Amino acid sequence: MTAALVHAALSDARIYTAPMNATRTPAAEPLRPLRWIGGTDGCLELIDQTLLPGELRWIACRDLPTLFDAIRRLAVRGAPAIGVSAAYGVVLGLGRGWEKPTRDWPPRVAEVCDYLAGSRPTAVNLFWALDRMRRRADALRGHSLDEAREALLAEAHVIRDEDAAMCRAIGRFGMELIPDGGGVLTHCNAGALATSEYGTALALMYAAHEAGRRFRAYVDETRPLLQGARLTAWELMQAGIETTLICDSVAAQVMREGRVQLVVTGADRIAANGDVANKIGTYGVAVLARAHGVPFCVAAPSSTFDLSIPDGSRIPIEQRDPDEIRAGFGRRTAPADVACYSPAFDVTPAEYITALITERGVIRPVTAENIRRMLV
Amino acid sequence: MTAALVHAALSDARIYTAPMNATRTPAAEPLRPLRWIGGTDGCLELIDQTLLPGELRWIACRDLPTLFDAIRRLAVRGAPAIGVSAAYGVVLGLGRGWEKPTRDWPPRVAEVCDYLAGSRPTAVNLFWALDRMRRRADALRGHSLDEAREALLAEAHVIRDEDAAMCRAIGRFGMELIPDGGGVLTHCNAGALATSEYGTALALMYAAHEAGRRFRAYVDETRPLLQGARLTAWELMQAGIETTLICDSVAAQVMREGRVQLVVTGADRIAANGDVANKIGTYGVAVLARAHGVPFCVAAPSSTFDLSIPDGSRIPIEQRDPDEIRAGFGRRTAPADVACYSPAFDVTPAEYITALITERGVIRPVTAENIRRMLV
Repeated sequence: MTAALVHAALSDARIYTAPMNATRTPAAEPLRPLRWIGGTDGCLELIDQTLLPGELRWIACRDLPTLFDAIRRLAVRGAPAIGVSAAYGVVLGLGRGWEKPTRDWPPRVAEVCDYLAGSRPTAVNLFWALDRMRRRADALRGHSLDEAREALLAEAHVIRDEDAAMCRAIGRFGMELIPDGGGVLTHCNAGALATSEYGTALALMYAAHEAGRRFRAYVDETRPLLQGARLTAWELMQAGIETTLICDSVAAQVMREGRVQLVVTGADRIAANGDVANKIGTYGVAVLARAHGVPFCVAAPSSTFDLSIPDGSRIPIEQRDPDEIRAGFGRRTAPADVACYSPAFDVTPAEYITALITERGVIRPVTAENIRRMLV
Repeated sequence: MTAALVHAALSDARIYTAPMNATRTPAAEPLRPLRWIGGTDGCLELIDQTLLPGELRWIACRDLPTLFDAIRRLAVRGAPAIGVSAAYGVVLGLGRGWEKPTRDWPPRVAEVCDYLAGSRPTAVNLFWALDRMRRRADALRGHSLDEAREALLAEAHVIRDEDAAMCRAIGRFGMELIPDGGGVLTHCNAGALATSEYGTALALMYAAHEAGRRFRAYVDETRPLLQGARLTAWELMQAGIETTLICDSVAAQVMREGRVQLVVTGADRIAANGDVANKIGTYGVAVLARAHGVPFCVAAPSSTFDLSIPDGSRIPIEQRDPDEIRAGFGRRTAPADVACYSPAFDVTPAEYITALITERGVIRPVTAENIRRMLV
């Protein structure tokens, strides 16, 4: 029994597993990595992304510890998906397992938000969603617990729906860039699994696919953690999009062979001048795209822009654990004591970016002025 | 007991294992992946490279089947190292286990060469070395078996020594390119482990290190088979060279940060115009090097040049097994049915190559005329 299963059994979660060939979603029904089942006494179901692509297992979070654990161990990942999950977590915190008779509900909301905020200390969307739920709760003071639960569940649904609508809008604005009969390369996972549905970079592909455009997705496996191989390849195949997985070092070759007419990635953070911080490897792909005359685009909601930093040089670059490189596949594949240099992300200068695709429209060319004009 | 161990036990091989911390060779004594022990009744010892870097185990080949198996399953790899091993194999074939009293030795040499040629059907150096041993044997007809064995062992030693001398010369010619106080990036393994000693690309580093130059080697892990992580990082550390392992997708970032002042790789084949076929990923590194103003050099013996092909477009590109990407390290990390594009190597156009370093000298700039002048 794995640690996850033990935890689930201890915390009243329902877990079930479907065989892979039964789970391929028809293209008409988009993949959603999370769903709320039932009313205010319901539960939040999450795809356990640590098990993909080998197994599609849903974790049913009926209480806070199960959700906390799912966020902490990256069963749910991607800034928007974490934010939405945490919003539902506030509803879970007012449900079963809480000793309602003896306490009023507003202090409980504060307690729940503080608890959930500790699950991923650096996740900006997590704090953003919890703050929004806190503000909603403040506005509900004086209402009964049942009224509060109804209103907070409705607020969580709104956060989810807004996220989905934002992703849909990004897809609509960006789909024209997808080359009919061509190839599109992406790096890491900026897809449905990272949001409430549809994704950001992958939203362009989903929208184009639904509109009947034919193209092939080339997916960088994305070392060290293989989000491309594990997550992006899987979700694109679920949607019926033609997908080819490549090692990161093959990106230059597929460009040279003319297989790719567009590169699109997501973003972790975008500076006021358009410099983009994203998963390590993005910068190299951007340089290669320019050398081969391939447009390089970044898709992200407006909340990803941080206009308080003038350019990418102000973004600190965190280092990953060397053992993700030295022993990342469950087997030691490098000397145990070799030094590693493993930045978690890199910064692509604005000059390499053909266009930024947001839920408000396409920013092109990428300049501080055009960004301000679209967002402020 | 692994298959390799079973085979070894059946075929009278001596295998021993040394703990890793006892095996770090002082810089003054270069790493050799193969060594002949004793006289004409001796044995060929090979490092089992499939076990690196976890374990340094020598395989003692006292008979042909052990050597054949070592070549076939890549325990010894790298075109020059395979050629030298096969030359010694001819001596093994005339030693113990062969029913001398009843047969003359020349037909036995032919039999042994045919047998060894089947171990790696596409290895050019293997055939080259066996042909050279065949020619030597032809010249020895009429001599006694003992005389033939002495002369053939001497010839194998010469092949080994010529290879080592060639690598030393490449190192001498190229070491001036190694930036004192800077960084050097390499891709895959073109080191001592691929030759009889010293290597080709890594020969520059060994020569510079011996001359007291200080620098840091940045080693691409080299997906899918991780020769950089498993072999290059290991052998550079054995020599006491400061080594940093990176994911392939980090090469652009270390260049951008100014950590690297030279890129040097080996080559599988070089066309008449200087186009270089080498391990997949080399081309991308060359494009990135040019974009960052970093010299990109290729080190290879003159035998690597194929003047019969005018340029790299004539070099066929073989595809690797998709499961090297989807499940390369004993764990499935991508959908089992996802398509993969996995060329074994790529071709870097001559225009991206700052210099070619051979045992005869440095070719710079890389033009068909300069190549002809150096080699013909």
